[in-house]
Amino acid sequence: MVDVSTLRAALPEAMVVTDPDILAAYRFDRADDPSAGTPLALVRPESTADVQTAVRWCAEHRVPIITRGAGTSLSGGATAVDGALMITTEKMRGITVDPTTRTAVCAPGMLNAEVKAAAAEHGLWYPPDPSSFEICTIGGNAATNAGGLCCVKYGVTVDYVLGLQVVLADGRAVRLGGKQLKDSAGLSLTRLFVGSEGLLGIITEVTVRLLPPQPAACTVVGVFPTVRAASQAVLAVTAQTRPAMLEFMDHTSINAVEDMLHMGLDRDAGAMLIAQSDAPGPAGLAEVALIEQAFRAHQADEVFATDDPEEGEAFTVARRVAIPAVERRGSLLLEDVGVPLPALPDLVDGVAAIAADNDVTIAVIAHAGDGNTHPLIVFDPADREEARRAQVAFDQVMGLAVEMGGTITGEHGVGRLKKGWLPAQVGDDVMELTATIKRALDPHGVFNPGVML
Amino acid sequence: MVDVSTLRAALPEAMVVTDPDILAAYRFDRADDPSAGTPLALVRPESTADVQTAVRWCAEHRVPIITRGAGTSLSGGATAVDGALMITTEKMRGITVDPTTRTAVCAPGMLNAEVKAAAAEHGLWYPPDPSSFEICTIGGNAATNAGGLCCVKYGVTVDYVLGLQVVLADGRAVRLGGKQLKDSAGLSLTRLFVGSEGLLGIITEVTVRLLPPQPAACTVVGVFPTVRAASQAVLAVTAQTRPAMLEFMDHTSINAVEDMLHMGLDRDAGAMLIAQSDAPGPAGLAEVALIEQAFRAHQADEVFATDDPEEGEAFTVARRVAIPAVERRGSLLLEDVGVPLPALPDLVDGVAAIAADNDVTIAVIAHAGDGNTHPLIVFDPADREEARRAQVAFDQVMGLAVEMGGTITGEHGVGRLKKGWLPAQVGDDVMELTATIKRALDPHGVFNPGVML
Repeated sequence: MVDVSTLRAALPEAMVVTDPDILAAYRFDRADDPSAGTPLALVRPESTADVQTAVRWCAEHRVPIITRGAGTSLSGGATAVDGALMITTEKMRGITVDPTTRTAVCAPGMLNAEVKAAAAEHGLWYPPDPSSFEICTIGGNAATNAGGLCCVKYGVTVDYVLGLQVVLADGRAVRLGGKQLKDSAGLSLTRLFVGSEGLLGIITEVTVRLLPPQPAACTVVGVFPTVRAASQAVLAVTAQTRPAMLEFMDHTSINAVEDMLHMGLDRDAGAMLIAQSDAPGPAGLAEVALIEQAFRAHQADEVFATDDPEEGEAFTVARRVAIPAVERRGSLLLEDVGVPLPALPDLVDGVAAIAADNDVTIAVIAHAGDGNTHPLIVFDPADREEARRAQVAFDQVMGLAVEMGGTITGEHGVGRLKKGWLPAQVGDDVMELTATIKRALDPHGVFNPGVML
Repeated sequence: MVDVSTLRAALPEAMVVTDPDILAAYRFDRADDPSAGTPLALVRPESTADVQTAVRWCAEHRVPIITRGAGTSLSGGATAVDGALMITTEKMRGITVDPTTRTAVCAPGMLNAEVKAAAAEHGLWYPPDPSSFEICTIGGNAATNAGGLCCVKYGVTVDYVLGLQVVLADGRAVRLGGKQLKDSAGLSLTRLFVGSEGLLGIITEVTVRLLPPQPAACTVVGVFPTVRAASQAVLAVTAQTRPAMLEFMDHTSINAVEDMLHMGLDRDAGAMLIAQSDAPGPAGLAEVALIEQAFRAHQADEVFATDDPEEGEAFTVARRVAIPAVERRGSLLLEDVGVPLPALPDLVDGVAAIAADNDVTIAVIAHAGDGNTHPLIVFDPADREEARRAQVAFDQVMGLAVEMGGTITGEHGVGRLKKGWLPAQVGDDVMELTATIKRALDPHGVFNPGVML
């Protein structure tokens, strides 16, 4: 056991925590991996310099580092390992919005919702909107290249990150990129660090690009008899336009959400689509009409459009709470598989077949407009046989996505939960290329061991 | 001198060229660096396998490789070095557009214009539009993360590259990414290779995302008494909206273009702005009105709007030919400096001061809407004293951009011409990080030596 007294001496005393009760709260992230380890200590840095001190100490003592934002990782990216130093960015706070450059410089512990709110104060908009936006941090968003609901039109986190400050494995802090919108000076290191899941460094500052405010959106909801009809309607929409949102919920997730929110969703529906158009004026009306028509042409039993923002938001909330709602029915294995869009109907059918084959419940929600689905495999952890079948189904769903030319993770990252499947998707040569870069930047493997590789 | 006979034996005979006359034509790119070297041979591969053969041969014999698309680099990224093997992708041709996934798989030798045309055949659009789009290749665009005129609204090449095939330094070929729109499986290697300027591998296939066709655009032209008035008008526009194009030409470039095209541009203008709105319907009309108003509020002598696509295109062409037009007046040192937008007026003023101080002509054109300017330093190479002053001005302009928190290159890349300035912009630690990644992926430094590092 490494002695943390030298670390304690190098940082303000309250910053280094070894109280077992507090440490226990930092062992797990939202993936709830039962094999989470017990950390050596927790550090709550307030500045980049504090992070540097902690990293230098870890480098010297070869102590692994798990960096943690709000711990909302769904793939075990922030799960503790035995003997590691947990570094949480929760006390690294602050944001400066620069309306003239339309950028915001954010400390990593700012919540995504706080970044949105700070931008909105200046009449600006930070688009990326993971479902957890109210509780996840911008640092974690950058580390995982988080997606969300509006990504189908507005792109993911990497599309908004102009610059980063990063603490490297030897404790040096570097600035990558900046406030300029276009910059091709040197390798795209900013983009390499976005989505690197804590393997290459610790992000201590994020400079994001902001947009003018999103125009008011119209919401179109379609209720379908089957998941296949709904997923074919998705293709009919995306073949013609690029909506601001195009979300999918299946029968199980609709019912789970209805149990939670009692908002009058159709419990008999096979699937539901929630689309939004934020095109202004007549273009928006035309887009709404096109979406309605596509829904009707694919067997929608009911199609409902509204330009009332509150009514629209109610459906968005329904979609956002789907994961916690389904979680009330049991433990979850969370999938995040994506396929090229035309394969979506076959993927959704394939997931249903895997559920039937393994006698497990799989609720499916999806950012359908970009082919990114979240099959949620429900199981009772006390039922070891069901837990085993759930794990088999989890593997089979990833296998199916890879077979269809897709990805095992569209937006959550590989983390610890999915790393076994990464080689099947990318191949051994790309795994080796990944390991080469990891070794070059973190030769002692201090950062987030067990993730991805 | 390495004997190329073994390479010749390993490839179809006509593929390896050593004819000095042909080699001479491949020594230079558009940067016309007089210090270009003499290559050992030229290889014109037709497939990824041919590239692998050539790379393996070079790795074995420690022969440097310069990869070349159409040789349109403005920063010397494809300039020959002595004893190198030039690999041109010009015979790697072919494109498959998949309208259902809205993607195109392109061989690297396809011209940007050919990619656009192939997409258009399916009613789709490939946005990135470097001014050289009719003569530059998609492989080169990916290797340099090329920009263009519509980037202010639609982003640069990296925003469209979903997947790559790359030949690594040891001759292995890897596939990165794919057709799925969202993919966070593993490190962002696709994005690392985009813009890597041939330092990390050879791009042998590019999968790009396509958009629905661009709506018809309205063009707004403003004529200004001074460059400062025009650049302040730029800020007034970008503070309120995100036009589809916002280009800047100064007095010298306007006159150079008028000499070439005789289209009736105002020869007395201090500067001209060319903006486009492609927002549909009333939103477009409102955007055009807003741009006109911003121009008038900043001293525009004349403001002219048209929804006639041909008339609009004439002004776009005027902007696109500015570099060759100015080049008729002498040799050019081409700048590509960018700053955060609010610094644009000061940058433009600073460039004028540098021109005056050094008694050289600097024509300025700019993708003004994203703060990316192209000061073109004109000099007579036969006049050694003027050439020296031009070089001093070239350095001073980059120094100014760095001082203002900007970049030495917004879209052309560092190449050989600007590498001396890269450390000043990014700092020694980032240079070392860059070198670390380069060494890890290309330990013998075979790929494009002399570029960036």
